[in-house]
Amino acid sequence: MQDLKHLSLQSNIGHHFNDANLLHKALRHKSMGGESNERLEFLGDAILNYTVAEMLFQRFPSLSEGDLSRIRAAIVCHESLVKVASRIGIADFLEVDQTHRVEKSKDSILSDALEAVFAAVQLDAGHDVAKKVILHHMEILLSRGEVPLGKDSKTALQEHLQARGIPVPIYSVLSQGEPGARTFEVQCDVPMLRIRMTGKGPNRKMAEKDAAAKVLKKCVASL
Amino acid sequence: MQDLKHLSLQSNIGHHFNDANLLHKALRHKSMGGESNERLEFLGDAILNYTVAEMLFQRFPSLSEGDLSRIRAAIVCHESLVKVASRIGIADFLEVDQTHRVEKSKDSILSDALEAVFAAVQLDAGHDVAKKVILHHMEILLSRGEVPLGKDSKTALQEHLQARGIPVPIYSVLSQGEPGARTFEVQCDVPMLRIRMTGKGPNRKMAEKDAAAKVLKKCVASL
Repeated sequence: MQDLKHLSLQSNIGHHFNDANLLHKALRHKSMGGESNERLEFLGDAILNYTVAEMLFQRFPSLSEGDLSRIRAAIVCHESLVKVASRIGIADFLEVDQTHRVEKSKDSILSDALEAVFAAVQLDAGHDVAKKVILHHMEILLSRGEVPLGKDSKTALQEHLQARGIPVPIYSVLSQGEPGARTFEVQCDVPMLRIRMTGKGPNRKMAEKDAAAKVLKKCVASL
Repeated sequence: MQDLKHLSLQSNIGHHFNDANLLHKALRHKSMGGESNERLEFLGDAILNYTVAEMLFQRFPSLSEGDLSRIRAAIVCHESLVKVASRIGIADFLEVDQTHRVEKSKDSILSDALEAVFAAVQLDAGHDVAKKVILHHMEILLSRGEVPLGKDSKTALQEHLQARGIPVPIYSVLSQGEPGARTFEVQCDVPMLRIRMTGKGPNRKMAEKDAAAKVLKKCVASL
């Protein structure tokens, strides 16, 4: 039964292990004692950063180093990794000491285990396979717009446009919702690029940030 | 003449480029305008971190994640990269705007260019060649004992020993030099490991740190 469960996990990861022990080790939290996934996490973190950097470098030949760094940071950030780990369903397979079980869903344990899994894939089948697996999951994140492009997307968008000599975006409030249940709808318009997106939020500022993030994503996607 | 000079640089790097433009681009500081080495530096930094992480992971199967991280940080730190860049002689080939020429020897320009060179090697000949080049230069650093193992090697050594249940080292002053021209010589002894090294410094504390660094290096090398 355990093995069947692990097969479904391997399907979700997108790699069937020759050496299932590697996967088991990647899922073993240090609270269990013995050989945990910490060393694998160290390796996986480096593999992940390198793989995403290389992908961005190749895919966006006209992006500056600053933009590449910002997008990479958003893709490999803790928050993004937790989303991937959750989609794969890693939490159900983690080996955590009973006394730490309350921590099992803790985000850092999940993202650490995901990095360890990436390292395990590489040790099991080589870098090309690990790269394919990593990029597959990162593509899903990107295509679903789940990558948080920096904490302040308004600033990021403005910098991005200024670096290209494009005038700053124009924000305008479309609606404010009902009093008592306010939901602001804001439009962010970059006329020169003919990009106009709508953002929502519980206040004007957050709606603007939401809209700016969508415009920035469009800008990056159209490069 | 310029080409002959570049040939000697390529010899020092340990790779002869199929596409010499890649090397030129790696040496072009942003002060020159146009396409500089900044994007290559972004990629090279990721390649370097990954390559060193993988090397340490494979070479030291019993080191903890914490020790791996500490040693990696020491190997890829700014100070180490400047040493490698200087040995290769990168400064003589940098393209820097005349008005920035005073900066030419600035450390950050050198270490950035070195990372860009590593990326250029990878783009020119693939990751296996870049890995070989990177590890070659890092090996030289390590073998010459030029890797600064943390700012306080006494603390690092103590942590390293404590994690393994080994009693703390014993320090003893061997000599203090002449008054007016003091050079302290201190011995650091770890009886359980039968490791005993002598350090020198202008004061007792620095001599102790020097000795501790040597013992730590022995400990790591014998793992």
